[in-house]
Amino acid sequence: MSKNNTASGKGNNLDPWYGNYAARAAGLAASEVRALFAVASRPEVVSLAGGMPFVSALPKDLVIDAMNRVMEEQGPTALQYGSGQGVPLLREQILEVMALEGIKANVDDVVVTTGSQHALELVSKLFLDPGDVVLAEGPSYVTAVVIFKSYQAITEHVAMDDHGLIPESLREHIASNKAAGKRIKFLYTIPTFHNPAGVTLSWERRIEILQICRSEGILVLEDNPYGLLYFGEQPPSALRSLESEGVVYLGTFSKTLAPGFRVGWVLAPHAIREKLILANEAAVLCPSSFSQLVISEYLKTADWKGQIDTFRGVYRERKEAMLSALTEYLPDLTWTDPAGGFYVWVTLPDYLDSKQMLPRAVTELVAYTPGTAFFGNGDGRNNMRLSFCYPTPEAIRLGVRRLSTVVNAELDLLETFSATGPLSASGGRGSSEGPPPNLN
Amino acid sequence: MSKNNTASGKGNNLDPWYGNYAARAAGLAASEVRALFAVASRPEVVSLAGGMPFVSALPKDLVIDAMNRVMEEQGPTALQYGSGQGVPLLREQILEVMALEGIKANVDDVVVTTGSQHALELVSKLFLDPGDVVLAEGPSYVTAVVIFKSYQAITEHVAMDDHGLIPESLREHIASNKAAGKRIKFLYTIPTFHNPAGVTLSWERRIEILQICRSEGILVLEDNPYGLLYFGEQPPSALRSLESEGVVYLGTFSKTLAPGFRVGWVLAPHAIREKLILANEAAVLCPSSFSQLVISEYLKTADWKGQIDTFRGVYRERKEAMLSALTEYLPDLTWTDPAGGFYVWVTLPDYLDSKQMLPRAVTELVAYTPGTAFFGNGDGRNNMRLSFCYPTPEAIRLGVRRLSTVVNAELDLLETFSATGPLSASGGRGSSEGPPPNLN
Repeated sequence: MSKNNTASGKGNNLDPWYGNYAARAAGLAASEVRALFAVASRPEVVSLAGGMPFVSALPKDLVIDAMNRVMEEQGPTALQYGSGQGVPLLREQILEVMALEGIKANVDDVVVTTGSQHALELVSKLFLDPGDVVLAEGPSYVTAVVIFKSYQAITEHVAMDDHGLIPESLREHIASNKAAGKRIKFLYTIPTFHNPAGVTLSWERRIEILQICRSEGILVLEDNPYGLLYFGEQPPSALRSLESEGVVYLGTFSKTLAPGFRVGWVLAPHAIREKLILANEAAVLCPSSFSQLVISEYLKTADWKGQIDTFRGVYRERKEAMLSALTEYLPDLTWTDPAGGFYVWVTLPDYLDSKQMLPRAVTELVAYTPGTAFFGNGDGRNNMRLSFCYPTPEAIRLGVRRLSTVVNAELDLLETFSATGPLSASGGRGSSEGPPPNLN
Repeated sequence: MSKNNTASGKGNNLDPWYGNYAARAAGLAASEVRALFAVASRPEVVSLAGGMPFVSALPKDLVIDAMNRVMEEQGPTALQYGSGQGVPLLREQILEVMALEGIKANVDDVVVTTGSQHALELVSKLFLDPGDVVLAEGPSYVTAVVIFKSYQAITEHVAMDDHGLIPESLREHIASNKAAGKRIKFLYTIPTFHNPAGVTLSWERRIEILQICRSEGILVLEDNPYGLLYFGEQPPSALRSLESEGVVYLGTFSKTLAPGFRVGWVLAPHAIREKLILANEAAVLCPSSFSQLVISEYLKTADWKGQIDTFRGVYRERKEAMLSALTEYLPDLTWTDPAGGFYVWVTLPDYLDSKQMLPRAVTELVAYTPGTAFFGNGDGRNNMRLSFCYPTPEAIRLGVRRLSTVVNAELDLLETFSATGPLSASGGRGSSEGPPPNLN
């Protein structure tokens, strides 16, 4: 079909446009999590893989009431294009939400986006040239790593432990990149109830990491979808509460209300915010007026803080179900104990490969996300992410029991075929015993 | 703040991150249309500038009913994440919409996007490397030119006349670019009821342009937001109805239903579609489930074709009001006579500058979009786009009358200060008289 292709010798008879894609398109490969969504949708499979919030805990009347009032009172506005920055009243309300995590900001510095995912895309489009480096925890959020790669940037993973990102590792990565003449464009971090690691950056480290970034001139991209979903005490305040000029903060209604609206936001220093509005307009003209007004009406009239309390209770119970099932069925593994959020990060013995094991798990009707999905460099082979957000406590127990069948069968197989007893190579312990596991 | 900046000597004390943006960020400048939105929102100004559909012609009960049924019957699905490709039932219904314009397609090849704007962004992200060339009509859609620039591509404008894009000009641009060793990534075209030119590509030219692109290996990006909004006879079928492997087609519900939902779509050849799904997931995870289900329910239960008829009647009346006001108040200018859509393209005498004239127009309480906004190269100085979609026929008459005051004052001013009588340099005619104006 395409002469361009034929001429360049890059033709591909399955795709006549093969030779025409941008260089960055090579970074847009299907993720492991994506393939899992298809598997996990079969009803007989207990999926501990996806990160879907349990939206059924949201009384639908609250949403219906808000929708109807919006259409009755502001119908033409809800149906029309709006500004590229987002609805002013909603941006005021977003300030109230962020105030719960210690953030003081100006309404002018908030830009509403199509989920916080799109904020991440816009920030990446704005900052990343090919060959640039992004520092991120190891492991990190799957689709962040995909975006950085799609802008031809390199994600370097900074080591973390049970207290979050390790400042010394951050210093080393900055030094080695500067020595190599590479440009670090930002540190991407999920300090609170990390996805997928399930850990939270300590207060002391928050201060230290901000000091490092400030003195090294590194912008911080703080992604905070889970901060309000704590199970016990409130976590340390957001990084953005400590530093405004050096932090771009991403928030979302996907976990505290519902993801189906696709409404998130970015809070950015003045000049960056101005460019993000232009990037938002170029990408979608404006975020959905309808979604924004429904959320604004919900925040105005419903007990949204009480609803977040309800979500906290739901997820706390599910996390406890998961940890007690892990202790019961897989006592030889290690895992993190999240104080909020959606995820537990499990470490298998070194010689197990969670990706190779996955088809067997699906045969046993349980799904999880293999650890390698959360790294840009192939690490995480003997890790897996278990999500407790969506399945009921009973399903979680069942899922972990099925998982134990798979893991134990793998271990038996290895014991049978290996000269050295594999179990002797790794002291089994729960995360509450012994030193914190290094997650990198 | 940033050592990187200081070191590179690109620091800017107004923006500490000035030196950190990607090269492509330079393309994200505020458009002329953007600044106008602020002006046009003042209620005393008659805005002939924006492209807002008249959503008040949509009975709000139709939307309220659809919303309520969705929440009652599919609440948890509407509130949840969905697939990156979009809701299957909605994609089936989109096939029915496209069938009205002669398009036959497979449901698997439709990807739902956050407005067709986002489809344009995703296609650009997928195809455009720095220095690539995009061919587009001159003038072209403002925010398309902005997107191409934001991916560091060069927009080259192909000449058009009252029958749309001129095939011979397309051939010349292809030849000159190939001779210069430049890569043309696609032809971006709005063949039907062009924005801003208001003209429609003839049937004969559709066939010829597809033949040219096929033989030259140029992908066609067909943007068709207005095709169903015809005032008389139905326009020629979509380019995509004639050619499936070489055309990527963009559609939207923004003009036939409402833009506030931000739901559009892209229909693409198999391999491109697959990559667009991945790009969509990276950018927004999924389009809004809620918006998609409401539209799907509306299409299932409401007389959506009858509603499009209603819109046709509304816009036909407004176009007629605009053309008769132009004939009455500005008989010396030329303009296009659109057979559908939202826009009239007006040509002023050569020596008038529509951008310089705009502040005076706003003082007279009328706004329009200067022609230069629709070119990437500074052309269009003596053109303006007038939109008849949003204001009432009475407001349109008032707006054009105010505009005539401004134009005539400019002409008087020039006559006073110029030795040669400016009016003698340009024979005044309406578009129905004389040869079609060349819009480039």
